[in-house]
Amino acid sequence: MKKSALKARKEAAARLQLRKQAADDKAILAGIAASDITALSQAITLIESTRPEDEIRAGELVESCLNRATPGIRVGITGVPGAGKSTFIETLGLYLVGKGHRVAILAVDPSSSLSKGSILGDKTRMQELGRNPGAFIRPSPAGDSLGGVARKTRESITLCEAAGFDIILVETVGVGQSEVAVHGMVDFFLLLKIAGAGDELQGIKRGIVEMADAIVINKADGPNLIAAEKAKSIFKSALHLYPPKENGWSPPVLLCSSTEGSGITEIWQMIGDYATSCRADGSFENKRTNQNIHWLNQRIESALTADFYRNPQIKKAFEAIKTKVIRKELSPTRAANELLELYHSQSKG
Amino acid sequence: MKKSALKARKEAAARLQLRKQAADDKAILAGIAASDITALSQAITLIESTRPEDEIRAGELVESCLNRATPGIRVGITGVPGAGKSTFIETLGLYLVGKGHRVAILAVDPSSSLSKGSILGDKTRMQELGRNPGAFIRPSPAGDSLGGVARKTRESITLCEAAGFDIILVETVGVGQSEVAVHGMVDFFLLLKIAGAGDELQGIKRGIVEMADAIVINKADGPNLIAAEKAKSIFKSALHLYPPKENGWSPPVLLCSSTEGSGITEIWQMIGDYATSCRADGSFENKRTNQNIHWLNQRIESALTADFYRNPQIKKAFEAIKTKVIRKELSPTRAANELLELYHSQSKG
Repeated sequence: MKKSALKARKEAAARLQLRKQAADDKAILAGIAASDITALSQAITLIESTRPEDEIRAGELVESCLNRATPGIRVGITGVPGAGKSTFIETLGLYLVGKGHRVAILAVDPSSSLSKGSILGDKTRMQELGRNPGAFIRPSPAGDSLGGVARKTRESITLCEAAGFDIILVETVGVGQSEVAVHGMVDFFLLLKIAGAGDELQGIKRGIVEMADAIVINKADGPNLIAAEKAKSIFKSALHLYPPKENGWSPPVLLCSSTEGSGITEIWQMIGDYATSCRADGSFENKRTNQNIHWLNQRIESALTADFYRNPQIKKAFEAIKTKVIRKELSPTRAANELLELYHSQSKG
Repeated sequence: MKKSALKARKEAAARLQLRKQAADDKAILAGIAASDITALSQAITLIESTRPEDEIRAGELVESCLNRATPGIRVGITGVPGAGKSTFIETLGLYLVGKGHRVAILAVDPSSSLSKGSILGDKTRMQELGRNPGAFIRPSPAGDSLGGVARKTRESITLCEAAGFDIILVETVGVGQSEVAVHGMVDFFLLLKIAGAGDELQGIKRGIVEMADAIVINKADGPNLIAAEKAKSIFKSALHLYPPKENGWSPPVLLCSSTEGSGITEIWQMIGDYATSCRADGSFENKRTNQNIHWLNQRIESALTADFYRNPQIKKAFEAIKTKVIRKELSPTRAANELLELYHSQSKG
């Protein structure tokens, strides 16, 4: 075959492929609008893909869904491993679908993408909810950076809402930076605890208690009930020491038992009260707008920084200069200036 | 006069000026090494100057002082206005110079540079300490950004230590982001409180209690003593809920009266114990190294971001794109990508 004929064939195939993708995306979008779970899953798979052409398609799908969202609430749920997050989410989720809600459960867990699944990875943990047509469960996306994982979950929220899910539960493990990311994409942030042996904050990273809009003491049943009541009063006096949140909300402490189902009604009532009062005074929409602006700035800053540290000349020079700073041969200010000069001479050259 | 003669004259004057400056800087450096307060003040004035040629001179002075520092300790002191920071620092400072230490008092307070001096600006507030030859008091530098103010204070610490000051107290007001900056330049971070009317954390920003290495309840004297004791026990149980710091330190709560001088010995003993144990296990030096690396990265990131937002094309486009994000016509991710493309097309063009 002649070279030009081969080229023409390839181009025709590429055009065909593009037309097929455009048709697919149109079908996916229509599916999402019709609350079709398969279409939603396909769209999220595109978001989670790292192929550049999929990223473009995913970006366009997200844009198209931006204004289609069902008005609903996004709740972040965190807690150390062992706090009973899966059972809690299953119980809460079944309660909510029972009330006629459509519930999507997503996750941000960068560790699971390395260790292959610590939260939501194992669907057997939420078997009953997983079979319920009113629920959609999606495990934490894989990714090599928290920023990437968080972006994927954030965009999945938009798609789920466009598909008519009015309650989004975002699960994360209370041991690292991912809580900050989740806190920045939800309306309400819930910290799940169990009564411990005195050291109530064991394993919880500094700062997470401050972010919580409510603390729920799980496994408050049977012989655990007394310890749970005690933990509740300890947390109540601790939270009392924090100033109220910007919107005036004072985080409460509640008890529940995911296995017995007690406390779930009260927890959802409390979240509902929060949403009602925040919607009334405008702080609900304000918070979402601020989260979007923050997200915009953060994306810009992380892209600028990534571009800097990815630069081959910077990569070469950085360790040597850092060593000089550690040895106190160079001040951090001077070191930064030297690297910045090198970087700018690069991009101009 | 001919143009070329004028030019030659100007060049000669500039050369003379440079030689004079070099001689000045050598004298300043020698003065600092000889613990001369006038030389130290001149050097800090250069750091605080915004003239580009002064910035270069200041940078070189700081570099020359990097390895001359007296081994000592840097203590950050924060608290809301009214907590009695000035009186506390005066009492602590006099106690320390009485024990033979040389004490430098600096400040980070971006608000004072706008409102012209809320902390340390008024030297009359520390009259006795100000007259003591063992003490050096420098008000918060002026600056239009916290980053700039923080950099100046950070570099002033290096100069003070090179001038033989073994204890650096850095004052800040417990109402904003400046605590984070001060926390990143000191070895020990102390939160000063007074017993309030029940709401013990009134006016203290979220997160500041978490940063504290110790809480000191000031004005624990006379009729205040009972309330102070009560506040102490409340804070003790609250702090108990936090996990220990990375170096294993559990922040204690102490009482003091700056006017009666009670509690000061115990406070310094506690800080000394902290330093001794952290020096023994290496965490003292580790923390300083980490602070320097963090400072290096932070300088780079803030310079990259500043360059972006300063770009005229970005300035022009930003508000319109931000409005689209607020109106949900554009996702934050897409908005960021559009701005980044515009920026990179600029720097390449």
